[in-house]
Amino acid sequence: MLNPNRYFDPDPATRRVARALYERAASLPLVCPHGHVDPTLLAEDAPFPDPAALLVVPDHYVTRMLYSQGVPLERLGIQALDGAAVESDPRKVWQLFADHFHLFRATPTGCWLTDELEGVFGISQRLESATAMAIYDELQEKLARPEFRPRALFDRFNIEVLCTTDAASDTLEAHQRIRSSGWKGNIRPTFRPDLAVDIRHPRWRAEITRLGEQAGQEITQFRTFVAALEERRNFFKAQGASATDHAVITPYTHELPDAEAEVIFTRALKGQASADDAQAFTAHMLMEFARMSVEDGLVMQIHPGSLRNHNQRVHQRFGSDRGCDIPVATEYTRNLHALLNKYGNEPTFTLVLFTLDESTYTRELAPIAGHYPAVRLGPPWWFYDSIEGMLRFRHAVTETTGFYNTAGFNDDTRAFPSIPARHDLCRRVDATFLARLVTRHILEEEEAHELIVDLSYTLAKRTYRLD
Amino acid sequence: MLNPNRYFDPDPATRRVARALYERAASLPLVCPHGHVDPTLLAEDAPFPDPAALLVVPDHYVTRMLYSQGVPLERLGIQALDGAAVESDPRKVWQLFADHFHLFRATPTGCWLTDELEGVFGISQRLESATAMAIYDELQEKLARPEFRPRALFDRFNIEVLCTTDAASDTLEAHQRIRSSGWKGNIRPTFRPDLAVDIRHPRWRAEITRLGEQAGQEITQFRTFVAALEERRNFFKAQGASATDHAVITPYTHELPDAEAEVIFTRALKGQASADDAQAFTAHMLMEFARMSVEDGLVMQIHPGSLRNHNQRVHQRFGSDRGCDIPVATEYTRNLHALLNKYGNEPTFTLVLFTLDESTYTRELAPIAGHYPAVRLGPPWWFYDSIEGMLRFRHAVTETTGFYNTAGFNDDTRAFPSIPARHDLCRRVDATFLARLVTRHILEEEEAHELIVDLSYTLAKRTYRLD
Amino acid sequence: MLNPNRYFDPDPATRRVARALYERAASLPLVCPHGHVDPTLLAEDAPFPDPAALLVVPDHYVTRMLYSQGVPLERLGIQALDGAAVESDPRKVWQLFADHFHLFRATPTGCWLTDELEGVFGISQRLESATAMAIYDELQEKLARPEFRPRALFDRFNIEVLCTTDAASDTLEAHQRIRSSGWKGNIRPTFRPDLAVDIRHPRWRAEITRLGEQAGQEITQFRTFVAALEERRNFFKAQGASATDHAVITPYTHELPDAEAEVIFTRALKGQASADDAQAFTAHMLMEFARMSVEDGLVMQIHPGSLRNHNQRVHQRFGSDRGCDIPVATEYTRNLHALLNKYGNEPTFTLVLFTLDESTYTRELAPIAGHYPAVRLGPPWWFYDSIEGMLRFRHAVTETTGFYNTAGFNDDTRAFPSIPARHDLCRRVDATFLARLVTRHILEEEEAHELIVDLSYTLAKRTYRLD
Repeated sequence: MLNPNRYFDPDPATRRVARALYERAASLPLVCPHGHVDPTLLAEDAPFPDPAALLVVPDHYVTRMLYSQGVPLERLGIQALDGAAVESDPRKVWQLFADHFHLFRATPTGCWLTDELEGVFGISQRLESATAMAIYDELQEKLARPEFRPRALFDRFNIEVLCTTDAASDTLEAHQRIRSSGWKGNIRPTFRPDLAVDIRHPRWRAEITRLGEQAGQEITQFRTFVAALEERRNFFKAQGASATDHAVITPYTHELPDAEAEVIFTRALKGQASADDAQAFTAHMLMEFARMSVEDGLVMQIHPGSLRNHNQRVHQRFGSDRGCDIPVATEYTRNLHALLNKYGNEPTFTLVLFTLDESTYTRELAPIAGHYPAVRLGPPWWFYDSIEGMLRFRHAVTETTGFYNTAGFNDDTRAFPSIPARHDLCRRVDATFLARLVTRHILEEEEAHELIVDLSYTLAKRTYRLD
Repeated sequence: MLNPNRYFDPDPATRRVARALYERAASLPLVCPHGHVDPTLLAEDAPFPDPAALLVVPDHYVTRMLYSQGVPLERLGIQALDGAAVESDPRKVWQLFADHFHLFRATPTGCWLTDELEGVFGISQRLESATAMAIYDELQEKLARPEFRPRALFDRFNIEVLCTTDAASDTLEAHQRIRSSGWKGNIRPTFRPDLAVDIRHPRWRAEITRLGEQAGQEITQFRTFVAALEERRNFFKAQGASATDHAVITPYTHELPDAEAEVIFTRALKGQASADDAQAFTAHMLMEFARMSVEDGLVMQIHPGSLRNHNQRVHQRFGSDRGCDIPVATEYTRNLHALLNKYGNEPTFTLVLFTLDESTYTRELAPIAGHYPAVRLGPPWWFYDSIEGMLRFRHAVTETTGFYNTAGFNDDTRAFPSIPARHDLCRRVDATFLARLVTRHILEEEEAHELIVDLSYTLAKRTYRLD
Repeated sequence: MLNPNRYFDPDPATRRVARALYERAASLPLVCPHGHVDPTLLAEDAPFPDPAALLVVPDHYVTRMLYSQGVPLERLGIQALDGAAVESDPRKVWQLFADHFHLFRATPTGCWLTDELEGVFGISQRLESATAMAIYDELQEKLARPEFRPRALFDRFNIEVLCTTDAASDTLEAHQRIRSSGWKGNIRPTFRPDLAVDIRHPRWRAEITRLGEQAGQEITQFRTFVAALEERRNFFKAQGASATDHAVITPYTHELPDAEAEVIFTRALKGQASADDAQAFTAHMLMEFARMSVEDGLVMQIHPGSLRNHNQRVHQRFGSDRGCDIPVATEYTRNLHALLNKYGNEPTFTLVLFTLDESTYTRELAPIAGHYPAVRLGPPWWFYDSIEGMLRFRHAVTETTGFYNTAGFNDDTRAFPSIPARHDLCRRVDATFLARLVTRHILEEEEAHELIVDLSYTLAKRTYRLD
C-alpha cells in the first residue's frame, strides 16, 4: 500500500532528486527532543493492551475528528470524569473508528496511521468498515508478541534519544527505573513548570506544597519559590534533562521589581491573585526561566497561543487534552522584547520558539531568529505537523532565517508507535522542499544532500545539546 | 477559446488525474445554497435588457476594477442617487468595458466572463476594443431569444436548487409567484435579518414597524421582537427556506440578561442606542439566532469581517454594493466562545462559518470545525472565490478539518448567467487539489473520485439540508 | 555556475514559457524608483575600496545572518559607536564571511551574491572557506580597474533612472554635483521627511532648525513648519524628485484641527511631546503629505510596520540599520480610512503602499488597491524581496487587484553592485508566475509577453511618473 514515492512532488525531475535525498535520510537514527511519551511505558515495558487503547482512545487528533462529525466521545470509550458508563468493548470502538476512517483522508493522522499499520504492524489492507475486525485481530495478536513491546519497538525504531515532558514536581521515578533497569534506551526528562507558575490554577497551591516538600523547605516567599525551581532544574539536569518547556497563552515577557513579584506571589498563596496578577507573573517567570537557562544551560522552549479547553462541556465531562484546544493570534515582536533584549544576545542561551499562528512565520519569527543569536525556530507544531504545514513553514521562513536557525524536527507525540511514521513524513517533506530548490537551481544537489542530514538529524541534536 | 484543461496543473500526471476527476463532476446538477439572485428575475422571466445591463452595470466586481484604474462610475452607467445624468447608452458602456478588459487578466471575473461568453452565449472571440461592438450585437440578438430567458437558462444550467437571500420582512411575493406559476424550478428563500438587528441603521425603525405589521402586533418590547422574528422564520421555512444568513463586522457572541436586552432594545426604539449598545445587541442576537436554529433546524450562516462602504464618496453618490467594502482582521476563537459553548455540541444545529481573513483558516477555523459537531466551513468567500483562493483554502484547512467539515461550494452571486462558470471553475480547482493528493500518493484515486462528487454536489446538499 | 533556467519551475512546459518570457524582459533597461544608494558614490565615482567594504560590512542582510549564528559584529569590521577596536583587516572579514556562506543557502542574499560575483565580477567559483582568498584577490584586482567604478557599472547595468532616498533637510549637493559633472546618468532624489515629523526623536529639534535655515525663517509654528516642508518638496522636485517616502510604525491617518496640530507642535518644540502627541502628529502629517502630493504631484510611498532597533544592545553599540528591525502586525483598512476618504479618489494622486505583514495582501491591500484609483501596491518589500516572497505576493494579490494596480519592481537597496541581480531575479520570478498562468490556460501566451514588459519596466515608470 505504501508508495515509496509518497509525499514527493509529481514532477519527475523533482521527484528523482527528492527520492535520492530521502534515501540519504531514511535510515538515520531518530532524535526526539520534544514529546509526550509516558516514561512509565518504557519503565514497565508491558504489552500494549489492545488496538483501540493503543491507537484510538488516547489520541485526541483521532477522537476530535470523529466528534466533529457527531460521534459521541462516550462511544469511543473515553472515560468520563464522573464515572458514567462508556463503551467498554475495544472491538466496538475500533469498528466505529474504522467506519469513519474516511474522515482522515489527506490528514496527517490518516498518513501516520496508514504508515504505522503497515510499517510497524505489517498490515497492508486499507482500514474500513469491512476490514476492521480482521485488522483488529491481527493487531491484537501482534501486540501480544515480545517484539511489539515498547522497548523492543524503541530499538526497532532506531531512536537515539527520546525526551519526555514532565511537571516541575515530577519525581522522575519512571526515568530512574529505566536507568536502573540496565536497559540502554536514552530517555530524558524535560522540565515543564507550567502548573508551578499558573497562580490561578485550582491545583497550583498543591504543586507549591509539593515543590516545598521536595526542596525540604516550605515555600512562603517568591525568593524560596525561585530557589526551589532552580533546585528542581538541577535535579532534572542530573536525570539527563537538556531542556525546559513553557506553554503560555501569550509569550508576553516583562520583568517585575522584586517587591512586586513578592506581593503577587503572596496574594497568590492566599488564593487572591487576580487575572492581571497571573499575566504579570507569567511574564516575569518567563524572564526568570530565561535567566536560569543562561545560567544552567537548559534549552528553553516556548509553546504559546493555544486557548485550552475551549469547549467547556467536553472539558467538564472528559478533562483536558480532548481536542478542544483552539489557537489564538499570537504576537512575538513586542511580547518578547524584554526577554530578547536581556538574554537574546547571550552565547550560552538557546530559545526555541513555536507557534500556532502561521501569519507570524514571515512577519515575526523568521526575522527574530534571523537576528538574535539565542533564537531557533521550532518545527511546525500540532496542526501544522503535516505535509502542507511543513512545506508552508520551510517556504515561509527559509529565505529570511535560513536553515541553520531552525531547530530540526520533533514528533511532539504521546502516540509512541507513531514516532517512526512522523519522522519519516518529515524527512520526505524536507526532501521535497530541498528538491524544489535543486530543480529550480537555487541550491546545488550536493548542498541539498548535506542539508537533508542536518534537517533530519544534526540540527535537532545540536539545538537541544544532545551531542 | 476555452481550453478543456484550463486551471489544471501543468504536470502531465496530475493533469491526467484532474481531468478524469473533473469529468466525473462536470455534469452533476448545480446546488446553489447561498446566493443573491433576485427571485423577481425568475418570477417574471423577462428577457435580459442588454449586454451592459446584464454583465457590467450591476456587477461590482467589474465596476470596482475599472474604477480603480480611473474610470468614473458615471461613465459605466451606474445610477447616481441624486439622479445626476450618467452614461445611458449601453453600447458606450460596453465599449468602455471592452477597452479595459485586460485589467481582468488572471482574475476570477476574467475567467467567469470568458467562460460565460463562450459557454452560455457561444461567443469565442476575445473581448477587446476591436471586437466590442460585434460581440455586443451578437449578445443583444441572443438575449432576445426565448432560450436566453432566465427560466430557460435555469433549466439549461441544470440547477437543482437555488437559494436567494431575503430580508426578514420580505414578503417573499416573488417566491410565491414562482411557485404558483407552475414552473418547477426549485427556488428557496434565505432568512437574512441583518437590518432587523442593526439598531443604529437609519432604516431600522421602519423595518421594525414592518415586522410588527407582519406579526399583527406592534413591536414595543424585546420579547415581541424575538417572537416576530421566530414567526418570520416559520414563514420562510414554509416557503422553502433551509437557512439563515448573518453579516456582521465581528462574530462576537455574548448572551445578555433579559433585562439588559430589553433596556437596549427600548433605547434603540427611542433612537438612542449607542455604538456599544449596537455591539452588545448584535452579539446577543447571534446567540438568539443560534437558539432558534437549534429549535427550528434552519442552518445558520455567518459572514463576518467586511467593513462596508469604506469609500464614503462612492457610497454617498451611488449607494451600497459598489465594490468599496474592505475586509478587516477577524477573530473567531474568543468571539464565538459563548455561542459554541452553548450550542456547538447540539446535534440539530449547523453553523456555516465564512471569512475574509485567510489567516484564520489554519489558526482558528479549521481547528474549530475539526472539533465542534455543529460547525462547517463555508467555501472561500468573495475575493477568494477564485482559483488561487480555493487552492489556498483546501491546502490550508484539509489537514486539520478534513473534507467532511467543509460545506461544499456556493456561488454567492447576483450575476445569474455566471452561475455555471462559477461552479465549473470550482469543480476544476477541486479536481486539481485532489489530483495533487493522488499523484503524491496521499489519496487513492478511487477515494478522489468519491470526493469530487462530495465536494461538487453532495456536501452542499447535505450541509444545507436540501435533500 | 549560474544556470540559465534558475528560479523557473521545473515542469518542462512551464519552464519553456517562463524562459521565453524572461528572455523578452532580460535586456530591458533597469528602472529604479526606490532605493538607498548613496548619491555621493556616483558624484565621486571613486573605486570601491575592497571586497569586504563592498559586499559585507555595510549589508545588514549579510551581517545579521552571521550574527544570528554567533558571529560578533566586531569581527565583521562594523564600527562601534564608542570607537572600540574592531576587525580592521578586510581579508579576515572576507574569510569569516566565506566560512559562513552556507548560512545563505536558499536566501535571496545568497542568490544575489552568487549572481553578482559571476555576473558583475566574472567569478564562477563557489564562495567557501577554501576559495575565499582567491576570490578576494580577484575582486580586489578588478575593483581597481576603471570599468568597475560606479559610473561605469551604472552604464553597464543599463540603469535608466535611479532614485535615491534623502532627508527633508538634505542639501542634495551630491545630486547637484552629478548634474554639473556632465555625466548623463539619471539620478533623482526622493523626499523622505521621517526625521522632520518624528517629534520625539533626539535629533528632531536640530532637523527643524536646519529646515528653518533652509527656509530662511525660524520655524516656531506648525504653519511655518508645513510651509517649509512644501518649499523643500519644491526644491526636491526641481532637482528631479518624483516621489516622497514615509516610514511609520503604523499607517494610522487622522486629521487634526489646526489648533490642535499647533498645540502639539508647540509642545514638541519645547521637548514636551508625549507618545500620544507623536502618534497623533504622525497621523496628521500623513494627511498633510497626501494633500501636498495631490497638489504637487509627487508620488507618495508609505513603508509601515517595522519596529526599528528591536535589539537595543546592538543599536547602542553599532547604531541603526544593523539588521535588528523586526516587523509587527499592520492594519490598513481602518488606519487609512481618513486618508483614502479624503484623497483616494483624486485623479492626480498616487499612493504606493508597502507591507511587512503578508496577511494583509489578500485581506486589505488587494481590495483597497482594487478599488481606490489613487492606490498602487508596492512590490514585496525587504524580507519578501525574494523568490518565494514575490511568488506569494503575485499569487495573493493578482486575483483581486489585477496586475495594473501593482507598482512594478524596485530594488530598495544600498548595495549598488547588487542592482542587476535583484532586477534579474524579479524578472525571472514574474516570468515564472506568468508561465504558471499560461500553462494553466488562465492567460494567453501573448498576453503574458505583454505583461512581462509591463511588470519589468513599464509599470515602475508609469507609477512613479518617470516617463
